[in-house]
Amino acid sequence: MPSLTNRQWRLRSRPQGDMTREHFRWTEQPVAEPGDGEFRVRVRYLSLDPTHRLWVREAPSYFPPVPLGEVMWGSAVGVVEASRHLGFAEGTLVAGRFGFQDYAMSNGAGVMPLPEGIGPVDWFGAYAHIGLTAYFGMMDVAGPKPGETVVVSGAAGAVGSLAGQMARILGCRVVGIAGSEEKCRWLREDLGFDGVINYRAEPVADALHRLCPEGIDVYFDNVGGETLDAVLLQLRLHARVALCGMISQYNQGTWQGPANLGELIFKRAKIEGFLVMDYLHRSSEAIKAISGWLREGKLKYRVDVVNGLENALDALGKLFQGTNQGKLLVRVAGES
Amino acid sequence: MPSLTNRQWRLRSRPQGDMTREHFRWTEQPVAEPGDGEFRVRVRYLSLDPTHRLWVREAPSYFPPVPLGEVMWGSAVGVVEASRHLGFAEGTLVAGRFGFQDYAMSNGAGVMPLPEGIGPVDWFGAYAHIGLTAYFGMMDVAGPKPGETVVVSGAAGAVGSLAGQMARILGCRVVGIAGSEEKCRWLREDLGFDGVINYRAEPVADALHRLCPEGIDVYFDNVGGETLDAVLLQLRLHARVALCGMISQYNQGTWQGPANLGELIFKRAKIEGFLVMDYLHRSSEAIKAISGWLREGKLKYRVDVVNGLENALDALGKLFQGTNQGKLLVRVAGES
Repeated sequence: MPSLTNRQWRLRSRPQGDMTREHFRWTEQPVAEPGDGEFRVRVRYLSLDPTHRLWVREAPSYFPPVPLGEVMWGSAVGVVEASRHLGFAEGTLVAGRFGFQDYAMSNGAGVMPLPEGIGPVDWFGAYAHIGLTAYFGMMDVAGPKPGETVVVSGAAGAVGSLAGQMARILGCRVVGIAGSEEKCRWLREDLGFDGVINYRAEPVADALHRLCPEGIDVYFDNVGGETLDAVLLQLRLHARVALCGMISQYNQGTWQGPANLGELIFKRAKIEGFLVMDYLHRSSEAIKAISGWLREGKLKYRVDVVNGLENALDALGKLFQGTNQGKLLVRVAGES
Repeated sequence: MPSLTNRQWRLRSRPQGDMTREHFRWTEQPVAEPGDGEFRVRVRYLSLDPTHRLWVREAPSYFPPVPLGEVMWGSAVGVVEASRHLGFAEGTLVAGRFGFQDYAMSNGAGVMPLPEGIGPVDWFGAYAHIGLTAYFGMMDVAGPKPGETVVVSGAAGAVGSLAGQMARILGCRVVGIAGSEEKCRWLREDLGFDGVINYRAEPVADALHRLCPEGIDVYFDNVGGETLDAVLLQLRLHARVALCGMISQYNQGTWQGPANLGELIFKRAKIEGFLVMDYLHRSSEAIKAISGWLREGKLKYRVDVVNGLENALDALGKLFQGTNQGKLLVRVAGES
């Protein structure tokens, strides 16, 4: 067997603004054999996520930053190719934070086999950290009641599109905010959103005033910044904001705080941040619900797959420009 | 009996920055006799509160704004002087939103007799909207557990000083932020705060880092702005911010939102706004608890009494300069 090469993207420097391939170094290393209690994973699909930008900051976010020189972190799905670990047999499809590389060595910590019958693309499209973030953020943190008005930003994004559909499943009136006519059409026509706002076409505050005249009960926020400010002005009494992400700010040196935060007092409302990793012990609950909704046709998703690990960093920019259409993945190896 | 004159401060124009006597008009009117089902109150003490600034804005806060030309709203205590209302006998001390004037006519809506044995000054110092805001904001909204670290801003203010002491009564470690050495000394020496920060003497972020090295579990915020931003950076996992007020911003045209709002995600924390008026149906619970703590010497307060309705508007400025020491009141009439 010819010796295998592990291609890797390693963090070279910390971006101030946009994160690009200049901040990373491409390295190639021979692949090692697993030691006792270890297994080697051949990465197939790598997930590209807005949160990657937070992990490379100097300041800690919810993790200490990725150390300079280290292989860039990232959630991935791969196949166990060689194993000396009793819990992970060769040939098993597994999910874990395998990073921006072809091969990862693991002792099993934080790694789980994909549930029976779910492939890598479906996994990232509807489950994984994406579907679970939507599920627990909407169901647990926001907790909308039937008939309430729910607004979702980044609504055509991986998490937002699922979160909005889940609110509809709960019987809510759902308004999505997205950045193109195509995205808005998809939300309205394919996903059944009750209202859509193209934030590039009209001021969000005006549109919210028009579409949510009685106010907003729940806001599932993926973007922060000006959109959050516009939503705050339109909150209803006792509104809840589930703060999932603030992608509009991640490339900014100083983040823009919401000038209208005082509305929380006036409306006796709250903003609550959350992270999916706090809910992993309840994964099976979410997976069961999501697979049921998929089967019934109540939940849809789309994926945007980029080919080749070498293109991963260029592809990341799509998230911040909003040019991806659905969950952004890199196919690192294997059939499409 | 000579005819009585009712002196009044009426809103003349909406302040952009500081609210001063220039924005009001002094009027004098003859006092009317109560009609059937009405009673007349002779105002004794008028409460001056930061929230007055919000009531005169063009934009609605939690109320529609005070209309131009109307007597300025304000909570007050007075004596029923003439009554044709079966529920309010002459001579009764009553609390209500009687406004910036000598006499108010009422049909009893929103008016309550002072509890037995509590005078006007004690009422405003420890009970009224002040004590109840501290009580429900700390107990219900923030809900600190024994041993947790609680930070209070505006800590030497009327609400903040009570809220901090209540957290101590609950068994928390309490750090207060105030604007002078004298205030800090009072918090530490007389009220038993565990730590104090004079925000005019050192950067709040540095002081919090030093005094709360393990992080902040609960923040009771009266000020907003830079202080809130500094606290956000030091939050502990699952922290709770009870947003009571944002006095640092009320005189600003555009309010400063917290640039560090993303910390809510990183720390899975929340900010929740509240208003005491949502808790009035539970007044008796708070009054009972507060009177017990006062009796046991566990709760202290101080009041800053200004003489004369004519000085009310100049006195209001003290709240925004931070030069009041304790609950700011105007003695409108009657013995001190």
